[in-house]
Amino acid sequence: MFEPLVQNGATSRGALMAAEIAEQPAAWARLLREGRAAIDAVAREVRRYTPRFVLFVARGTSDHAALYAKYLAEIQLGLPAGLASPSTMTAYGARPDLSDVLMIGISQSGGSPDLVHSMRVGRAQGALTVAVTNNPDSALDEAAELAIPVLAGPEHSVAATKSYTAQLLTVFLLLEAIDGRRTDAVHQLPEWGAEVLALQPAVAEAATRYRYTQRMVLTGRGYAYPTAREAALKLMETCYLSAHAFSGADLLHGPFAMIDPQVPVLTVAPDGVAGTALRPVHDQLARTGADVLTVGSPAHLASATVGLALPEGIPEALSPIVEILPFQHLALHLALLRGTDPDHPRGLRKITETT
Amino acid sequence: MFEPLVQNGATSRGALMAAEIAEQPAAWARLLREGRAAIDAVAREVRRYTPRFVLFVARGTSDHAALYAKYLAEIQLGLPAGLASPSTMTAYGARPDLSDVLMIGISQSGGSPDLVHSMRVGRAQGALTVAVTNNPDSALDEAAELAIPVLAGPEHSVAATKSYTAQLLTVFLLLEAIDGRRTDAVHQLPEWGAEVLALQPAVAEAATRYRYTQRMVLTGRGYAYPTAREAALKLMETCYLSAHAFSGADLLHGPFAMIDPQVPVLTVAPDGVAGTALRPVHDQLARTGADVLTVGSPAHLASATVGLALPEGIPEALSPIVEILPFQHLALHLALLRGTDPDHPRGLRKITETT
Repeated sequence: MFEPLVQNGATSRGALMAAEIAEQPAAWARLLREGRAAIDAVAREVRRYTPRFVLFVARGTSDHAALYAKYLAEIQLGLPAGLASPSTMTAYGARPDLSDVLMIGISQSGGSPDLVHSMRVGRAQGALTVAVTNNPDSALDEAAELAIPVLAGPEHSVAATKSYTAQLLTVFLLLEAIDGRRTDAVHQLPEWGAEVLALQPAVAEAATRYRYTQRMVLTGRGYAYPTAREAALKLMETCYLSAHAFSGADLLHGPFAMIDPQVPVLTVAPDGVAGTALRPVHDQLARTGADVLTVGSPAHLASATVGLALPEGIPEALSPIVEILPFQHLALHLALLRGTDPDHPRGLRKITETT
Repeated sequence: MFEPLVQNGATSRGALMAAEIAEQPAAWARLLREGRAAIDAVAREVRRYTPRFVLFVARGTSDHAALYAKYLAEIQLGLPAGLASPSTMTAYGARPDLSDVLMIGISQSGGSPDLVHSMRVGRAQGALTVAVTNNPDSALDEAAELAIPVLAGPEHSVAATKSYTAQLLTVFLLLEAIDGRRTDAVHQLPEWGAEVLALQPAVAEAATRYRYTQRMVLTGRGYAYPTAREAALKLMETCYLSAHAFSGADLLHGPFAMIDPQVPVLTVAPDGVAGTALRPVHDQLARTGADVLTVGSPAHLASATVGLALPEGIPEALSPIVEILPFQHLALHLALLRGTDPDHPRGLRKITETT
């Protein structure tokens, strides 16, 4: 039987991260219950503004939420979208013409000076600016014209978990509200999340497999690519290993050369286009004899050494919100096995002040 | 005295890559001599179109040329810019409104089906489409309304080198022509390139240091960030190691935790904003006791274990064209030391057909 590795309350290594991972279904339910009014109000302003282009500004984990939102904007809103390089506006002083641009800044703390600076420049250059943070009193909220709280509650572990999935759900709700749609399936997310969190014993067992690896490769396509990126970051910051994420297509353009049976590969293959589009990658991995762990639809687990099945019937655009959960658990359990503290990674602080 | 490691003509491991690296200054001189007319003709069309936004479409090495071009577009043209995720248009069937969008596809071969498909969709959706390839008869050239050849000559090594720097110079010339400017310093590039290629003995010696590493971290900021990305890709595809590039700011948002004295770090710190903005990263690396190789301005080499000095006086926006050269040599020499063949990496072909 599975025994939790975190036993001694709040002072144990990883206790904060474990608790915050577990809180996620409740955090999503709260956001669905209490967050809609703010989201709908911002959506009305955005519709009035009628953006021609969407620019996201974010760093670290929040940058993966921005990447997810970029896919939503392009596919569901039909608007070209980009991820800003904050240094162009901060270090280089670029002042691009941003009229007709919707600029969305995403940050847990809302405190990173380069994001705040970019948001101020964006606003001055004519963009409609929206801050999405977990801290309604933040400098980013103040810099932006409009703000939406993700309502994840205080996050104490340096490795962000619940704020990430709350960001994903917030941008999903915002972009569908801009488009005037409502996806009923969002209300099933807390239930799906609980199901996926229940995979924890299998994930903890899988973690032992990676006890001594120095490197991992992660891959996913489309909506699942941000999941691969975020999973890699969690593994890097908590386990100090080189975890490198590629879109399935980019992997085949060069980096595939480094994969052999000594390099563990983790793939994300949900129901829908993302999982189907990953098939050529799974096929080539099988030919290479690679050791593959897949989080995904039962249909895509056949060739994996370790398969972790997601519940069936999750709409693809919502899948990233739940498919990251096993990777968060993997980072937690692997960090504990390797003797590190995922709540306090060496060399990091909760709020990173880059300029 | 330095003896070239490649001695037996075209059949030796790495002979193609070595020759193509050496050809670069001559390729740039040819582009400056013979390529300007096509570039200026496209620039006139672009000015007539007056784009509001620039979207780049590329994969692999060419994606790093696109990232460089994105900085140029934002900083020098003052236009918001983005890197397209081809899968949104190919796998998901997104049909965004691309009127007022300048869409630039960059590819060595011009043959990857997903890029060709994205270009066709972009053109149908109202974008002004421009293909930048090393193959004027390519499908990408045909799909685009306008095309510019980078004139690098046939490239045979799977690891792209001369086509990359020719892409950088082409997009530099294109964007300055759109802006109606001429930078005289471009004519010094062949000379600067020859100077940097002459660092080869020092680079070959430095390569021995990394004979057994499984992982590397690379970093740069601003214009130097694409160099870090491209250097990492070269090292992955030729040496089969996990080489992971981060912008200096993103590195501090999480991945820094994985750095200790056992993880070699390579940094790019040219003259100008990019080098100055990297100082906090160099400081934190020094505190961590990391082993650092820096390619950059003499002013930024003090804290590096190995420093490779770039010529002084290169305008920052042109620096990426020459600062990648030592990394190409590093990938070549390290691959030879490790017993792999950089001209024919396992699992790769010259033209990658992703859909």
